[in-house]
Amino acid sequence: MFFERKPKFAVLGAGHGGQAMAAHLALMGYEVNLFNKTATRIEAVRKIGGIHLSGVFNGFGKLKKVTTDLRQAIAGVDIIMIVTPATAHEFFARALVPVLEDGQIVVLNPGRTGGALEFAQILKEEGFKKKCYIAETQTFLYASRVIGPAQARIFGLKNIVPIAAFPAVDTPVVYNKLHRVFPQFTPAKNILKTSLENIGAVFHPVPTILNVGRIESTRGDFTYYHEGISPSVARFAQMVDDERMAVALRLGVDVLTARDWMRKVYGVQGNTLYEVFQNNRQYDGIKAPATIDHRYIYEDVPMSLVPISSLGRMLGVPTPAINTIIDMACLLHERDYWAIGRTVEKLGLAGMTVKEIQSYVETGKVKVRRPSKVSRFTVGSEVERVVDLGHIIREREGGVDN
Amino acid sequence: MFFERKPKFAVLGAGHGGQAMAAHLALMGYEVNLFNKTATRIEAVRKIGGIHLSGVFNGFGKLKKVTTDLRQAIAGVDIIMIVTPATAHEFFARALVPVLEDGQIVVLNPGRTGGALEFAQILKEEGFKKKCYIAETQTFLYASRVIGPAQARIFGLKNIVPIAAFPAVDTPVVYNKLHRVFPQFTPAKNILKTSLENIGAVFHPVPTILNVGRIESTRGDFTYYHEGISPSVARFAQMVDDERMAVALRLGVDVLTARDWMRKVYGVQGNTLYEVFQNNRQYDGIKAPATIDHRYIYEDVPMSLVPISSLGRMLGVPTPAINTIIDMACLLHERDYWAIGRTVEKLGLAGMTVKEIQSYVETGKVKVRRPSKVSRFTVGSEVERVVDLGHIIREREGGVDN
Repeated sequence: MFFERKPKFAVLGAGHGGQAMAAHLALMGYEVNLFNKTATRIEAVRKIGGIHLSGVFNGFGKLKKVTTDLRQAIAGVDIIMIVTPATAHEFFARALVPVLEDGQIVVLNPGRTGGALEFAQILKEEGFKKKCYIAETQTFLYASRVIGPAQARIFGLKNIVPIAAFPAVDTPVVYNKLHRVFPQFTPAKNILKTSLENIGAVFHPVPTILNVGRIESTRGDFTYYHEGISPSVARFAQMVDDERMAVALRLGVDVLTARDWMRKVYGVQGNTLYEVFQNNRQYDGIKAPATIDHRYIYEDVPMSLVPISSLGRMLGVPTPAINTIIDMACLLHERDYWAIGRTVEKLGLAGMTVKEIQSYVETGKVKVRRPSKVSRFTVGSEVERVVDLGHIIREREGGVDN
Repeated sequence: MFFERKPKFAVLGAGHGGQAMAAHLALMGYEVNLFNKTATRIEAVRKIGGIHLSGVFNGFGKLKKVTTDLRQAIAGVDIIMIVTPATAHEFFARALVPVLEDGQIVVLNPGRTGGALEFAQILKEEGFKKKCYIAETQTFLYASRVIGPAQARIFGLKNIVPIAAFPAVDTPVVYNKLHRVFPQFTPAKNILKTSLENIGAVFHPVPTILNVGRIESTRGDFTYYHEGISPSVARFAQMVDDERMAVALRLGVDVLTARDWMRKVYGVQGNTLYEVFQNNRQYDGIKAPATIDHRYIYEDVPMSLVPISSLGRMLGVPTPAINTIIDMACLLHERDYWAIGRTVEKLGLAGMTVKEIQSYVETGKVKVRRPSKVSRFTVGSEVERVVDLGHIIREREGGVDN
């Protein structure tokens, strides 16, 4: 084991996160390829063959290949780190189908809610037959920024980054390959844990939407977590968090409340979500987005809130605050996030009971229902009927359906 | 006609509007009683027997009676001016049932959406038998403030204040009594016009909700119409306005768009709602509310947006932007504005067709449907079915139902 060959990496996505990770891996001595869809973003990196890293780590991270050719990028590597907004996960799943090699590990950094499930579902639908490993992290490892051409800076690293594979039986394979590289990676029970402990679902869309006027008229020139999160904004975020917790509880997943997450990650105290935000000195000076055309809405609404809402609807857990925020986002962006987002259908969970979902995330296998179990079928069709009616009424009520 | 006895007034409500109107009427030489539910607010006025008025009009308005006794306040008067938030209209309707006298005129200043209809429906339900006249204005006559104990100031008056009675056949009676007192009052076709040209529905809830964080963290220390209405806020307000116009169009009512209203009332130009707001110099310096517990939400959501949404749902006009703003308000205030608000049921319009509504607002009479017209009945029950389903799904989807 000790003399095991060092894994080779491909980092897909050359934004703030991808360039930092590629450079860091290279500095640690790993062979790394960097892929980006558009050539302009990696032009400078390609010219000098690597990335200057500063901040927590300093040095030149020399890359093996810098390319816009996905096949070349992943050929012969062991681990594929996808470091993009979750909105790009579907693109990568479809693009990787013809080029993925047997035994490769794909990690979504992070998966948001349902990333690994959606990815696996696309491979299934596309008839993918090889054995690969699909995993997601609960959050992104670094706080990092691209600070110039081929220059990245890592401001900080999280101590613990939960990771899980879909199915969970594959988590040990992924963990064993990665934990020597990133000791922060910690195995989570399964992807329901990493997906439902996605705290961005609580921290991003609500404060952005309840500050639209200020974001646009000041171009984000106010402190997001302190000035942006007033008592009513925090109370609304708490409602969203309560709904997230209720869906997790229904699925038997033990996740932290947003307040406990803040206490654990930042060590801050407070009786309410408002107090922990205000008491968190590490949020000092963090500015709001400069525009509402921001991933806090276009990523977190379809990839975090829609899957929680969709699971809630299927399992009979009401999510009125989440639904209203999704509706607001649809109207503000004039985009149908209900259709774009990760529904239970896209996650391959449609019609499943809680027990079936729990078994599916562990084994990856859908239990075949025995025809004799009529009651089981009835439950399934009940669920579908509710979803259908919801659709009809959404249109009747004038819901967003553009 | 010229020597007709001067009408006697009761002004109900001693807030910013009521004190200004009572003092102004008294200054013009009319006999005026002032009523307020709570004694403290009229204590100073009662002590000195009137109100010092300043601004556009100056002088001491001596009042006949200043009282918390409704029967005393309205005994023997000709015209009862209700000058309160629309949320108090229901209280006044119920409280007036036992004391209203034959021939008295009640004017809601303003009615918001459906004020006169709701008022008349309550009289009907309470078995009120006398002949009174119920009218509503489209907007409030003054810009005024209480500036001290028994001191009111009128900053300005609107040139035109549309007024209509329910039913419209009564409008001439009301107009003839009032137009010599208030030449600004102009008869509108019917209450659909005054109710659907309620521009507060467009200007109040959307900018307040999309600025919750800023309102609370600055206590309203920013300009409401200029800094508060950014391009996306104006776009959202435009969607609300488009839905209001669509409901009006379905009812055959010719109302101004918000943009045209701004052009007409303030003489400002602009291609978009955003531009007319920004170009309106008369909005300079108007600050936002200091709290979100403000009539811009607790009055305009249930008394302006809910009736428009409810009419839209009954008549097949989708109002997704309005519905989402109502949902947001319910969650922010933890109050069920869908239940509190003026639905078609409360307006006495439930189950009516467009033609029936048009006829009802003119004559006050509900057409009795002939049993032979089965198709007509089918339409009625169709409508009810849709409304019912909406209710079911709202609960299933986790809509607000507290």
